[in-house]
Amino acid sequence: MPPRKLQIACSGLGRMGARHALNLLTRTPRAQLVAAFSPDEKELAWAKVHLEPSGVKLYSDYDEMLKHVGLEAVVIATVTTVHAEQAIKAINADKHVLCEKPLSTSVEVSQSVVDAAKAKPHLKVLCGFSRRFDASYRDAWDRCDSGAIGRPSVLRSQTCDKLDPSGFFVEYARFSGGIFVDCNIHDIDLALWYFGQDSIVKSVAAFGITAVQPDLRKYKDVDNGVGVVEFWGGKIAYFYSSRMMAAGQHDMTEIIGTEGKLTINANPMSNLLEISEPTGVRREIPPHYYGRFEHAFVTESNEFAAACLDNTKLPFKLTGAVQAVKIGCALQESLNTGKKIFFDETGRRIEKASL
Amino acid sequence: MPPRKLQIACSGLGRMGARHALNLLTRTPRAQLVAAFSPDEKELAWAKVHLEPSGVKLYSDYDEMLKHVGLEAVVIATVTTVHAEQAIKAINADKHVLCEKPLSTSVEVSQSVVDAAKAKPHLKVLCGFSRRFDASYRDAWDRCDSGAIGRPSVLRSQTCDKLDPSGFFVEYARFSGGIFVDCNIHDIDLALWYFGQDSIVKSVAAFGITAVQPDLRKYKDVDNGVGVVEFWGGKIAYFYSSRMMAAGQHDMTEIIGTEGKLTINANPMSNLLEISEPTGVRREIPPHYYGRFEHAFVTESNEFAAACLDNTKLPFKLTGAVQAVKIGCALQESLNTGKKIFFDETGRRIEKASL
Amino acid sequence: MPPRKLQIACSGLGRMGARHALNLLTRTPRAQLVAAFSPDEKELAWAKVHLEPSGVKLYSDYDEMLKHVGLEAVVIATVTTVHAEQAIKAINADKHVLCEKPLSTSVEVSQSVVDAAKAKPHLKVLCGFSRRFDASYRDAWDRCDSGAIGRPSVLRSQTCDKLDPSGFFVEYARFSGGIFVDCNIHDIDLALWYFGQDSIVKSVAAFGITAVQPDLRKYKDVDNGVGVVEFWGGKIAYFYSSRMMAAGQHDMTEIIGTEGKLTINANPMSNLLEISEPTGVRREIPPHYYGRFEHAFVTESNEFAAACLDNTKLPFKLTGAVQAVKIGCALQESLNTGKKIFFDETGRRIEKASL
Amino acid sequence: MPPRKLQIACSGLGRMGARHALNLLTRTPRAQLVAAFSPDEKELAWAKVHLEPSGVKLYSDYDEMLKHVGLEAVVIATVTTVHAEQAIKAINADKHVLCEKPLSTSVEVSQSVVDAAKAKPHLKVLCGFSRRFDASYRDAWDRCDSGAIGRPSVLRSQTCDKLDPSGFFVEYARFSGGIFVDCNIHDIDLALWYFGQDSIVKSVAAFGITAVQPDLRKYKDVDNGVGVVEFWGGKIAYFYSSRMMAAGQHDMTEIIGTEGKLTINANPMSNLLEISEPTGVRREIPPHYYGRFEHAFVTESNEFAAACLDNTKLPFKLTGAVQAVKIGCALQESLNTGKKIFFDETGRRIEKASL
Repeated sequence: MPPRKLQIACSGLGRMGARHALNLLTRTPRAQLVAAFSPDEKELAWAKVHLEPSGVKLYSDYDEMLKHVGLEAVVIATVTTVHAEQAIKAINADKHVLCEKPLSTSVEVSQSVVDAAKAKPHLKVLCGFSRRFDASYRDAWDRCDSGAIGRPSVLRSQTCDKLDPSGFFVEYARFSGGIFVDCNIHDIDLALWYFGQDSIVKSVAAFGITAVQPDLRKYKDVDNGVGVVEFWGGKIAYFYSSRMMAAGQHDMTEIIGTEGKLTINANPMSNLLEISEPTGVRREIPPHYYGRFEHAFVTESNEFAAACLDNTKLPFKLTGAVQAVKIGCALQESLNTGKKIFFDETGRRIEKASL
Repeated sequence: MPPRKLQIACSGLGRMGARHALNLLTRTPRAQLVAAFSPDEKELAWAKVHLEPSGVKLYSDYDEMLKHVGLEAVVIATVTTVHAEQAIKAINADKHVLCEKPLSTSVEVSQSVVDAAKAKPHLKVLCGFSRRFDASYRDAWDRCDSGAIGRPSVLRSQTCDKLDPSGFFVEYARFSGGIFVDCNIHDIDLALWYFGQDSIVKSVAAFGITAVQPDLRKYKDVDNGVGVVEFWGGKIAYFYSSRMMAAGQHDMTEIIGTEGKLTINANPMSNLLEISEPTGVRREIPPHYYGRFEHAFVTESNEFAAACLDNTKLPFKLTGAVQAVKIGCALQESLNTGKKIFFDETGRRIEKASL
Repeated sequence: MPPRKLQIACSGLGRMGARHALNLLTRTPRAQLVAAFSPDEKELAWAKVHLEPSGVKLYSDYDEMLKHVGLEAVVIATVTTVHAEQAIKAINADKHVLCEKPLSTSVEVSQSVVDAAKAKPHLKVLCGFSRRFDASYRDAWDRCDSGAIGRPSVLRSQTCDKLDPSGFFVEYARFSGGIFVDCNIHDIDLALWYFGQDSIVKSVAAFGITAVQPDLRKYKDVDNGVGVVEFWGGKIAYFYSSRMMAAGQHDMTEIIGTEGKLTINANPMSNLLEISEPTGVRREIPPHYYGRFEHAFVTESNEFAAACLDNTKLPFKLTGAVQAVKIGCALQESLNTGKKIFFDETGRRIEKASL
Repeated sequence: MPPRKLQIACSGLGRMGARHALNLLTRTPRAQLVAAFSPDEKELAWAKVHLEPSGVKLYSDYDEMLKHVGLEAVVIATVTTVHAEQAIKAINADKHVLCEKPLSTSVEVSQSVVDAAKAKPHLKVLCGFSRRFDASYRDAWDRCDSGAIGRPSVLRSQTCDKLDPSGFFVEYARFSGGIFVDCNIHDIDLALWYFGQDSIVKSVAAFGITAVQPDLRKYKDVDNGVGVVEFWGGKIAYFYSSRMMAAGQHDMTEIIGTEGKLTINANPMSNLLEISEPTGVRREIPPHYYGRFEHAFVTESNEFAAACLDNTKLPFKLTGAVQAVKIGCALQESLNTGKKIFFDETGRRIEKASL
């Protein structure tokens, strides 16, 4: 008899939700996608074609889905604004949860998910920082951890999207929490990973412009942001995020240590093909985040399923997700006030009136 | 009710066989691995742990396995010497077949597989030229096909293995058919793909040395081979194969056309990490063939399953596999006699006594 | 009769001075090095061997050297602290001047050089921003200027030195003006080049750590610095400088426009050689600034000589050098106070007490 | 008093000749270009503008030029057909000689230059294999020589020109000696360098097509050639040459040893700039040979001048140039007859009638 599979549901069937659902259905052998929820007619219509024939029960009511008989786990990939609410409901219903990042654009709300999870220590609750499952980032971590670059001291990381001239990102900005919370949250999480989850922020400062989408200003957002985060103990992380890359998605990271440097994805590429033509030598690069991290998402759902089934440890703690949102929100505040923001060695915010 | 899955078996559970079996089990959602065969105790012991618990029935007799109730298809990944025999048996037993390359080290035996397949036109019979399923090679093909580089005229392709100081390749050479048949068969197949499956060979010449494994000579093999194949119509393919790469596997291809060039994998890499250290900037490269082509193998088994289930066309014809072996054998003969071998415009071998 | 050559002297024969002198002697066909000055015995001893035999008169007194009969121009490559004084003396003595960067670590002193030059409009006075003479940066500029990347909006640039464990940089920091004035001055100059020489700074903020040389603190300097400069009109430049690169010098720049991006030296390399070995594929990178910019320095001295002889325009104005120092000093101040510094749209500094 | 300079002349002022002349005039401080010869009116007109004003005496008669008072050395950069004659005349007139490659397209004629040089052992006679002066190739040699890659066993090298649709190469082929003698002569010389100047050829075989310039056939030439050279002692070199690269010049070499591999210029580039644009990431590559090897040519003329003035050893022997021509001619013959050509262990040609 084949081993039992994790009975799992997917909430949200938009761009990322559909990918999660398909990964659970076809590329996560230890999981069985049994249910899916979307409040959106179009998404449900898609699911009727792509999920239902494989035995997935579709729901237009999240609470109903949670009652699906035998359901053990939920992947939450809805709009950010409902992440936390759905996660808490699922936890309270005794389901394991894999929640897309960020838990919330609010620190307090993010914390409430952590609190709910703490109350149910037998559940696996994971925030979907996909880069944590990427082979190159993991290779970097192993080397870092083994001391290959001495003491990691400076981290540079960027999340840069291909220019989308449709104006999509303007409306998206209404709820995204802003570019530092939406994009650089990944880079912030990397800083916490490579510098240590217990790193304490000393100051943050953020800068931004609207080079191609001036309408972003109405949601206090920008299309190009630069953020710097100082940590107590002599470490600096600096971030760049952009919505206007011409060639495609370019997410990259450098971890600079006292004895060496690790660089991940300095030279983005769609695949291993190069084209020589009269204008020179050219390679294409992935058009979007998923093109870069597809395999990381597959690893993520497989490892999540394994942790739930085998009751093993998740690769990182949920509390870091709150810290990342906290830093992201501070950057967003700094962007909007123009102020640098300071924290003491316990992480408490301090006002430097005299500055 | 979930859609039905292709009932499939895996024959051979050695290095590649085990990978095929696991891909069928966990990464080929439309296939169900129901049976596996190996004549080898150690391989069966491995399968007891990794396959049997998932409901795979194990066989130590290939003919018995073919009688497995409901079996529809077989992946053949045994030693090359039994590929053809097993493929023909499976075809005769009305099973779809995915047979690892080469069909045989003999042209005649390879042809007998094609003949068997012709007699059962409802079956899907595929020779596992894994590069045909690789995203980069496919991208190159699409561009080639759309005229992006004009008329493909010169192809350079290499299959280079990491040095294995254990002497493994000496014993392996006893049955491999020689380096041109075993390694460059992939490159030959690429030449036929990009130049056109109907390309007619005009001449072949091969050269080789035993730089690190002099014992290969006892099986008339070499550890570094260079082969050139001229085609009628003004096309040249030249190949390199090696068993002594220090850094790892490096398989690459250049397709040079009258208006451009496509290069696949000029700069091999294990992943997207680069390491800066006192000795410079370094990247690691995959240690073996599978490290480079893992995703191609997964695509291969998924597309094979889909073609069997949906009765759709396979991406390329079986007859090409015979042509590739024919060219590989001619290269091997040229290597051993030192002679250049000629063919007329119908592909018939000619003796140039005066040469 | 061969055409006349610019009669030129070199002041300072330390690391960069010696290179300038040799470039003038052997790689600047339109210049004739006739004199050289150094206050240092060891440097003069070197010059006795390498310059004097070629007819160069050596001086241990700068003022005496300025009186050298027929002298037309001076290259100033002494320690930064005397750049301005020597430049002004030379200008007053009616000599053309090529002064190493920065003019001074003080804005006022830098301005005094500009003032002296203004009084002698027939003289060519150039600040040696060597990257302005580099083929790759010039190629980038031409493309920028032709609109290839739309409106340049974000610039990232770094100057990163190989780790020098000797402690050299600690003593060097006593007079260097700090890492932003000494290293990032080049990057600041690039921002002014690509964004436009008339760009007005809106704010600056700087951050730094001493990861490997804690003694730098006594000169208020750091070994890793991150600086951000906002310009009025929606442009941001951000900089990184480091004294602890393991592999070698890595200076690179990205100019990100609304329609494309230009990247200069993303992948540093000493030459075109790559080494495949059991640990992977490796390339070496230049150990120091001169290894990267040697040819730019040669171009610089040739173009300077040509401008003096032909009375043609220099490729960029001297006033920019003051602006670069101004920005560098503001970054240095921000580093040391922890404060962000603001400027109004006329470039005047403003205090934001309420911030 | 400045040290004396080598009194040198340049013969031939075509594409390469003009470059040599300018390098001698402006980038070779220890040489003084005193004379130049060309039989061509247009070239002389160019020289009137670019050389004569610097004191270079122009000649339309080579023999007259050799009588120029005080002349010590000649660089020969005329058409290949007169290389040998001019070289011998210069040697007989007691001048040092730097002769462009190849000495001749005939082995016998090449040998006659060597014989002339042997009779005047006090003269420096150099064949201009420019890659021998290239920093990357020299770096590779040093590593090879120090055993970094074990025993060099396979060498792959190519000389590939940008497509020139003007048809220039058709007329050029009349005298060039053919693509193996004209282009691959460099690669052959590299094989002799890295494998050892005393390597003995065992067999050669060549293959070629006319993909874009069918008219080349009238001069028995091709626009794409593949050649293989086996050496006694278990070494193989294989070459590719092409006249139809879309993107620009791409000359590259791989030296594969038993313990590692050295790759020179796997990724050609014009400079360090990369352009990101909607079609991907692109770099340009040099349009011609000189764009790749400019600095090697400058090094060549400087080292030649130094060897003449200081009576020091040249970096490699003239006899190798004959061997390179011999191999090139054998490849050319193999191309045209379709035959593989064999040599015994003493290097004597053998007929294998039975083959």
